[in-house]
Amino acid sequence: MKKKRCIVCHRKADVYIVYANAAFCREHFIEFYERKILRTLKEAKFEGRRVLVAVSGGKDSVALLYALTSLAEALNIQIAALHIDLRIGNYSEESVAIVEKIAHELKIPIRIVDVRDFLGVGLPEATRVTKRPACAVCGIVKRWIMNKIAYENGFDYIATGHNIDDISAFWLKALLTQREEDIIRDFSIVTPPNPDYRIVGRIRPQIFLREQENMLYCLFKHAPFIQEICPLSRGATLHRYKEIWGDILEVNPVSQINFVKSLLRLRERIEKPKINMTTCKICGFATTAKDSICAFCRLRLRIQSWKNSLS
Amino acid sequence: MKKKRCIVCHRKADVYIVYANAAFCREHFIEFYERKILRTLKEAKFEGRRVLVAVSGGKDSVALLYALTSLAEALNIQIAALHIDLRIGNYSEESVAIVEKIAHELKIPIRIVDVRDFLGVGLPEATRVTKRPACAVCGIVKRWIMNKIAYENGFDYIATGHNIDDISAFWLKALLTQREEDIIRDFSIVTPPNPDYRIVGRIRPQIFLREQENMLYCLFKHAPFIQEICPLSRGATLHRYKEIWGDILEVNPVSQINFVKSLLRLRERIEKPKINMTTCKICGFATTAKDSICAFCRLRLRIQSWKNSLS
Repeated sequence: MKKKRCIVCHRKADVYIVYANAAFCREHFIEFYERKILRTLKEAKFEGRRVLVAVSGGKDSVALLYALTSLAEALNIQIAALHIDLRIGNYSEESVAIVEKIAHELKIPIRIVDVRDFLGVGLPEATRVTKRPACAVCGIVKRWIMNKIAYENGFDYIATGHNIDDISAFWLKALLTQREEDIIRDFSIVTPPNPDYRIVGRIRPQIFLREQENMLYCLFKHAPFIQEICPLSRGATLHRYKEIWGDILEVNPVSQINFVKSLLRLRERIEKPKINMTTCKICGFATTAKDSICAFCRLRLRIQSWKNSLS
Repeated sequence: MKKKRCIVCHRKADVYIVYANAAFCREHFIEFYERKILRTLKEAKFEGRRVLVAVSGGKDSVALLYALTSLAEALNIQIAALHIDLRIGNYSEESVAIVEKIAHELKIPIRIVDVRDFLGVGLPEATRVTKRPACAVCGIVKRWIMNKIAYENGFDYIATGHNIDDISAFWLKALLTQREEDIIRDFSIVTPPNPDYRIVGRIRPQIFLREQENMLYCLFKHAPFIQEICPLSRGATLHRYKEIWGDILEVNPVSQINFVKSLLRLRERIEKPKINMTTCKICGFATTAKDSICAFCRLRLRIQSWKNSLS
């Protein structure tokens, strides 16, 4: 970057944010980043008190934990961290070590749980047994465990590190595969809790931030994060849609934010389809399945019967 | 193409349609193409009788005129053609010659009108005077003239040659520039007439056909068409969004149809914003402008005052 200056203090800039056409020094990038999270939550009328931050150890969730720690007073929230050890070999071991270090440094209470205590096996075995894409299995497992831990420990919200690259790729894929229901259902900035069905609320404070910005924030805050991408996610089709965004952003750097905002607004104008929520007859948490067995319990049953077949 | 065979007659194939994963000989491609138009109109519950086909002389509208001529009996419609001579130098002269030849060959009544008789000037002058993008000015002018001629001659529908490459680029641009209203408003397959406001209905029978398919249909039907693209459209931003589609289609050849169908369905679930339709106090045709002067008359007034300033 040549000769760009921070738009706040006019010192030499360290980063240039293309879509905002703005350069920042480290200090004012951190301020810009945190203010964006604060504004996103305020505009979405977030009113939680006890927030459990789901931290994988990757740049997105690490940045989220640091930013929410900085903003805890401004948001009037208490936070704690949750890490789910998915038992994906070295990748998981490194993640656990990083997350423990971060929690210690930030003086944030952390709970680390082992996926095997809930599912009976680690993620690689679960994927192999079900023969489904790893990311789909992982989503089911993480959502259930996060909700259970948060619910049983009195948290009203879970915060997750979904960034705009994830969401725009997911929604583009939805439009390009005729799964428009995925746009209507998923990725609200704030989903309030539903205690009748033991559902903890969800916030996605980084919905307007790019992967790169999360990484820069980690670097500038000297926050450690796991650099490897999950070895089970290789070949996930979502990566291809992220590549398409690379092409689109060359044409217009603001297009990704425009896309997400356009779809959020279109979605607001669509009446939500009525969902028949019920409780899972096995675990007691929410499900929409007609036979009242939630996706997680179904997975668990399948793994159990596979185990039985071995013995 | 090596060794592909027509999926209907198993003779050597002349074309391979990637998104349909289907190869055809000439004869059966023509059948496939026309059946697609027929099905598109039937599924959209089109029930017109007298259809004015707007023919520019380009591959899309020429294919449309040929296909609707073939399908006139099946659709129980009477058709005629309209060509608007936009007075864009050689380009328009060639277009007029081609359109006359086609109408003669198809034995279809044709009306050729001169834009100057309505606007006072040709398109190049209109664009220069208004300093607006040529395609925007041209759209206003063509829509008004088509509707006027169709209305005054008792047609209930106008057919236009919008193809899926146009529509998907237009809608992608709408999502990427936060103009989601453009998705809600435009490009229905069938828009019924509204005689209270002198609005003739519109059909867009090629909404699920690609530019390439229209061109192949013209070639196989030995239909002449103008190969040049309009010289005034150079640099139109829509071309950039068409290039993005080139990248996306390499990832998934069905994605364009999926995208258009997804948005059509999302749109159906959105309540149309109430528009305050009124009639233009100058021309008497429909407008939504608050001062009751339609976009075409506003353009005409501006050109008139420019002309007056010269004399």
